[in-house]
Amino acid sequence: MLNFSFHNPTQILFGEGQIGAMSDSIPADAKVLVIYGGGSIKSNGIYQQVSEALANHNWGEFSGIEPNPSYQTCMQAVELIRQEGYTYLLAVGGGSVIDGSKFIAAAAEFDGEPWDILAKGAEIKSALDLGVVLTLPATGSESNSFSVVSNKETNDKLPFASPKVQPKFAVLDPQVMASLPERQLINGVVDPFVHVMEQYLTYPIDAKVQDRFAEGLLLTLMEEGPKLFSEQVDYKVRANVMWSATMALNGLIGSGVPQDWGTHMIGHELTAVYGLDHAQTLAVVLPRMMHEQRDAKRGKLLQYAERVMGLDISDEEQAIDLAIEKTEAFFQSLGMKTRLSDYGVGADAADKIVAQLERHGMVALGEHQQVDLAKSRAILAACL
Amino acid sequence: MLNFSFHNPTQILFGEGQIGAMSDSIPADAKVLVIYGGGSIKSNGIYQQVSEALANHNWGEFSGIEPNPSYQTCMQAVELIRQEGYTYLLAVGGGSVIDGSKFIAAAAEFDGEPWDILAKGAEIKSALDLGVVLTLPATGSESNSFSVVSNKETNDKLPFASPKVQPKFAVLDPQVMASLPERQLINGVVDPFVHVMEQYLTYPIDAKVQDRFAEGLLLTLMEEGPKLFSEQVDYKVRANVMWSATMALNGLIGSGVPQDWGTHMIGHELTAVYGLDHAQTLAVVLPRMMHEQRDAKRGKLLQYAERVMGLDISDEEQAIDLAIEKTEAFFQSLGMKTRLSDYGVGADAADKIVAQLERHGMVALGEHQQVDLAKSRAILAACL
Repeated sequence: MLNFSFHNPTQILFGEGQIGAMSDSIPADAKVLVIYGGGSIKSNGIYQQVSEALANHNWGEFSGIEPNPSYQTCMQAVELIRQEGYTYLLAVGGGSVIDGSKFIAAAAEFDGEPWDILAKGAEIKSALDLGVVLTLPATGSESNSFSVVSNKETNDKLPFASPKVQPKFAVLDPQVMASLPERQLINGVVDPFVHVMEQYLTYPIDAKVQDRFAEGLLLTLMEEGPKLFSEQVDYKVRANVMWSATMALNGLIGSGVPQDWGTHMIGHELTAVYGLDHAQTLAVVLPRMMHEQRDAKRGKLLQYAERVMGLDISDEEQAIDLAIEKTEAFFQSLGMKTRLSDYGVGADAADKIVAQLERHGMVALGEHQQVDLAKSRAILAACL
Repeated sequence: MLNFSFHNPTQILFGEGQIGAMSDSIPADAKVLVIYGGGSIKSNGIYQQVSEALANHNWGEFSGIEPNPSYQTCMQAVELIRQEGYTYLLAVGGGSVIDGSKFIAAAAEFDGEPWDILAKGAEIKSALDLGVVLTLPATGSESNSFSVVSNKETNDKLPFASPKVQPKFAVLDPQVMASLPERQLINGVVDPFVHVMEQYLTYPIDAKVQDRFAEGLLLTLMEEGPKLFSEQVDYKVRANVMWSATMALNGLIGSGVPQDWGTHMIGHELTAVYGLDHAQTLAVVLPRMMHEQRDAKRGKLLQYAERVMGLDISDEEQAIDLAIEKTEAFFQSLGMKTRLSDYGVGADAADKIVAQLERHGMVALGEHQQVDLAKSRAILAACL
């Protein structure tokens, strides 16, 4: 096990009806800006629940945060905050709204050009406090310090992280999933599955708790995920998927272990250039990354084959082949397409994406920094 | 899954050499009281490491916190704090030192008779900040808000809990285990194992992540625990046991699930009356509690038999019998004795302990509050 520091101070309020319980978590004298996306929260009742919970607070709103939140939109919110003197942000949405709100929280108090936070990794000295009402489980952003923001003018999709933007609290009410479109539910299973894989499928380092926890999340997502698409979904299924998605990326299973994130880095470029959903890019890239890295990841691939996929590993090569096949088949069983060509992306993708990776300095990906641009190109070619 | 609020703000600093990294976690202007036990930290080098880490702080010390920390000793520390104006506590020790320090942190700022915190559940409005250097993994106290303190004059061993006494940080350096006596290492495996069981072995509630995590901790303790007693123990073994013990009782696996704690309540009385180590009482009581509650716990006993003990559960009664036997055999394999008679406790224990339970209002234990005094008596009789 590697040395680590783990600190996750986000308070989780989990369960049906918990939106109403959050008001105690927001200072009574705060001026709250509620930030959301396209307005679906007005038709599914969540906006109403939030309004009621904030009945005794002074609050306003900013809507229009788009999927893959843009720097440009976020800066409009920053301007509003500076004009109106908001002191507390409440993100009501999924990963995009939360990621955008994290950037807004930092940018509103940033002394200088906020784009530098993304482009130059500029230090964040302070940020507005942020709470979250999660409406779409997937990214884990509700209880971590990470954010990814896009610049629509330059096709950049760039991450940043700071403990200053970690949410103070996150409300996780599984009932919010009832009104989600199927595509978002599919993303909400695939995304956390790949988050776990990025922290688990590297090389053995004798971190037995982290391994067992990661395997527990993968098994839960495989058992419960497909049930989301049956006609009668019950609360328990939604609760298990929602809690898995949060635990997949709250820092715990990644503490003390090597991490990969190569699939994400390639995926971010695919989203930036072709507009695929984040989870779609992961489902396309991961099986090919597993195949390309099968020697570097051999020990953990065999452990994954045995403990997660339930395979006999006496024939090791066959077990690895099957484990990769079953991973892709699991994504497909949810209704997720796993080839670039399924999304209308053609053979020019390899060149375009490799150029993007090079431009962003992503020239050595993975837990061993061995996925160079040639390997990324091979992975992309295999994704067609 | 039940609704829950989960909040664990303790920062974990894990790994070899991390004691030296803690000074940034203590405010520079704090006046620090280092609290420890019997002085073993002076012979094993930990005191020296702590001194070096505090080189730039104003600090003093209080030693003599005993196993099962006493109210009387804790109040001596409170007096010292009030006289000398200490503003920050650093507990250097195992569960007893940490539990005692939590009580001291609360009592030092308590307006009234601090015994009321334990005896009457008096509200804790504020407490001194507390950091921890863990020297003995077992109780999980380093990253939770619970504490148990004994009154030596009245044979009371009573718990309290408050978010105000949750440690700000906890240093977990597995190398501190190198100098521990065998008895403490045995306790350090049994104690977290039973902590997990108290939160896991209740009734099914479809909390799949919590179940998988609990099973992962049990499996890790069963795999790694016995290796602590081989001649050549490596760092990895200690690291896995230490991290398991913290994760066993930091609130995570107990969120959203029913909990038992009946074994602990009976065990606390055995410690108060007969002086057995806490973990010894758990190893004695748990197998008998499992047997007594085999119908109420049937669903989870079968899941435990299959997933943790690796048993074929087609013959359910036999599987449950075997699972209980294998649990006790695991404790014995570590060198832990599992009968009251092994500790020189005789047949009068049932009467004495039942009288204690009655006096403390522990008349309906367990996840269904169905373990009445008659059942506790039967459990104790079977423990002989």
